Amino acid sequence: MDINTGLEGVVAASTRLSHVDGERGELIIAGYPLPELAAHATFEETTWLLWHGRLPNARELDAFRTELAAMRALPAATVSLLRDCARANLDAMDALRIAAGTISLEDDDATTIVATIPTIVAAFSRLHDGREPIAPRQDLSHAANYLYMLSGEMPDAERTRGLETYLNTVIDHGLNASTFTARVITSTGSDLVSAIVGAIGALKGPLHGGAPGPALEMVFEIGDASRAESMLRRKIEGGDRLMGFGHRVYKVRDPRADVLAVAAERLFTRAGDMKLYRLAREVEATALRLLEKYKPGRRLQTNVEFYTALLLHGLGLDVPLFTPTFAIGRVSGWIGHALEQRSANRLIRPSSTYVGPRDLRWTPIEAREDLALVSSSVLR
Amino acid sequence: MDINTGLEGVVAASTRLSHVDGERGELIIAGYPLPELAAHATFEETTWLLWHGRLPNARELDAFRTELAAMRALPAATVSLLRDCARANLDAMDALRIAAGTISLEDDDATTIVATIPTIVAAFSRLHDGREPIAPRQDLSHAANYLYMLSGEMPDAERTRGLETYLNTVIDHGLNASTFTARVITSTGSDLVSAIVGAIGALKGPLHGGAPGPALEMVFEIGDASRAESMLRRKIEGGDRLMGFGHRVYKVRDPRADVLAVAAERLFTRAGDMKLYRLAREVEATALRLLEKYKPGRRLQTNVEFYTALLLHGLGLDVPLFTPTFAIGRVSGWIGHALEQRSANRLIRPSSTYVGPRDLRWTPIEAREDLALVSSSVLR
Repeated sequence: MDINTGLEGVVAASTRLSHVDGERGELIIAGYPLPELAAHATFEETTWLLWHGRLPNARELDAFRTELAAMRALPAATVSLLRDCARANLDAMDALRIAAGTISLEDDDATTIVATIPTIVAAFSRLHDGREPIAPRQDLSHAANYLYMLSGEMPDAERTRGLETYLNTVIDHGLNASTFTARVITSTGSDLVSAIVGAIGALKGPLHGGAPGPALEMVFEIGDASRAESMLRRKIEGGDRLMGFGHRVYKVRDPRADVLAVAAERLFTRAGDMKLYRLAREVEATALRLLEKYKPGRRLQTNVEFYTALLLHGLGLDVPLFTPTFAIGRVSGWIGHALEQRSANRLIRPSSTYVGPRDLRWTPIEAREDLALVSSSVLR
Repeated sequence: MDINTGLEGVVAASTRLSHVDGERGELIIAGYPLPELAAHATFEETTWLLWHGRLPNARELDAFRTELAAMRALPAATVSLLRDCARANLDAMDALRIAAGTISLEDDDATTIVATIPTIVAAFSRLHDGREPIAPRQDLSHAANYLYMLSGEMPDAERTRGLETYLNTVIDHGLNASTFTARVITSTGSDLVSAIVGAIGALKGPLHGGAPGPALEMVFEIGDASRAESMLRRKIEGGDRLMGFGHRVYKVRDPRADVLAVAAERLFTRAGDMKLYRLAREVEATALRLLEKYKPGRRLQTNVEFYTALLLHGLGLDVPLFTPTFAIGRVSGWIGHALEQRSANRLIRPSSTYVGPRDLRWTPIEAREDLALVSSSVLR
């Protein structure tokens, strides 16, 4: 019996939502190559596209925007819980998971979930910094309102566009672990909030979305392009992984990296500070050259983390906000997959193979002392 | 490319925790055939067995009992949230999911999670009925304390033993959907509370643990053994599924059904009321005879739900408590699997196959009106 602990190559769903072609470096979102969508669409349009299979017309988009904007405020119980989370100094993803669970208290439809997640993230971020949350505004777009709730300042069009491009870029990506979690939970006939809360828990893990800071820290650590080669060589020769490079699926450059690099360049150009952007490009070029030399054939390419870090930093977001902001984009994909799962459902229930002992007989407690020698604890 | 939407037959993990043999009708829990364990072990012993791979000796069991008993109380924020859940008239599984998420506020270790879940379930059940929660007692066993928190009365040894047998019986069952959810979330490197909250969301679904009432309702509806045959015939001929019969894995009698039938018989005998028990056995025998006749070769056998309903009803639990009580048992298995996943981790990330359009080009919004005709919404 073959055991496939990572389920690599096992096809667990057919989908109309996105297509990841790791060999060609392509990502299709509901029919559109990522570069066609990322810089054009508002996040509201991309979300509607994922849920309906086509772009909305003006009337449909207007109705969806209005509905989304109207659902942004949090129940009092949720805000109170976020205060407890901030007091307990929780991780932002734990706070998001806890607060997102309470959406069931008032509503549990798809629009409410998407509308509420940014409000939770912004409120927790401010509470954690000892500041009061800022109430959402209904007259702003989804992306602009999130930036507004973080800082209290109206973002300019460039920053809003930069965030929108990021959210579109990460909105869906095949059956990644969090999306798969949402589908497994949905497959039992459970509700949307349960699926989303499970997905947030999965996204938190450092092997999925939970470790986006190190790529940026490496760039800061290098500090100047002239030191890139020597520092990167030292890291590779010392056996360190270079953060921001390599992906299980993509064997060529992650198409999301290009889209985000363009968005970052545009943002930093307008902001009049190209220093960090040029340094990052230099670090990237040097890293790729060295990886090809030191690890030939491994095809380690720039992944989405590298330019995510640069772009989100350029938008003024601190590192602890990176993964929750990822969730703000990905939640529309999670919901799209949950709805798709529902539309042609089959309970997802793989098998395990048993490798433990058999036919043990019950031993009364007073006869157990010497069994300590044969322990095979999973707690070890 | 083969698509396996249910992952049936795909082996996604090797485990030392449990073995389900559907053809032979056997369930092994960490080496012990279920009947060896179910009626002998305390729930504390079975939990310790799952987590450590062997039964605890007296000293170890005593330490674990004491630790578990000490962690039963809920944080004030959790109780307050449960009041909100009761006011909002939430489903007991939603309330459990929401409240279990807050365990992160104070602690997130395995013992705290197992210790806290019954307190949450009992507190919500009482609040939902307009009564105040009853504080846990440290001097009672896990099972006895749960019954005490539900009613405020000290359960006798028979009722405690009945519940303990049930909790042992459902503690683990291979890679069912909720256990698999816990492993997927854990595989990203996420934390235990995230894994358990995801698993609770999955267990809620009616295709997994979320629909345990109907088997009992059917027995009540039949009401008298003399009406069993005619009513069951009418159901089968009308195309209804008989609740409590059939399982995707077991092709012979679910071994859990036998263990629970014995426990139910013992409980009802002591309670001096054998009427319901005899009726249920009569309904079961008639249903099996008719299923074999009407659906030959389908091998539809009594499943765990049938005697779960009878036993939990005999313990005085109302139907809305059935699935949360299932969670009180299964949580030890979820944690065992999460710890086992961690001990030899690989990110669980299957693939999907894309069946949507490709190479669409961006259309400006004013040119989209007529696209409504080609909609393929997942929301439909």
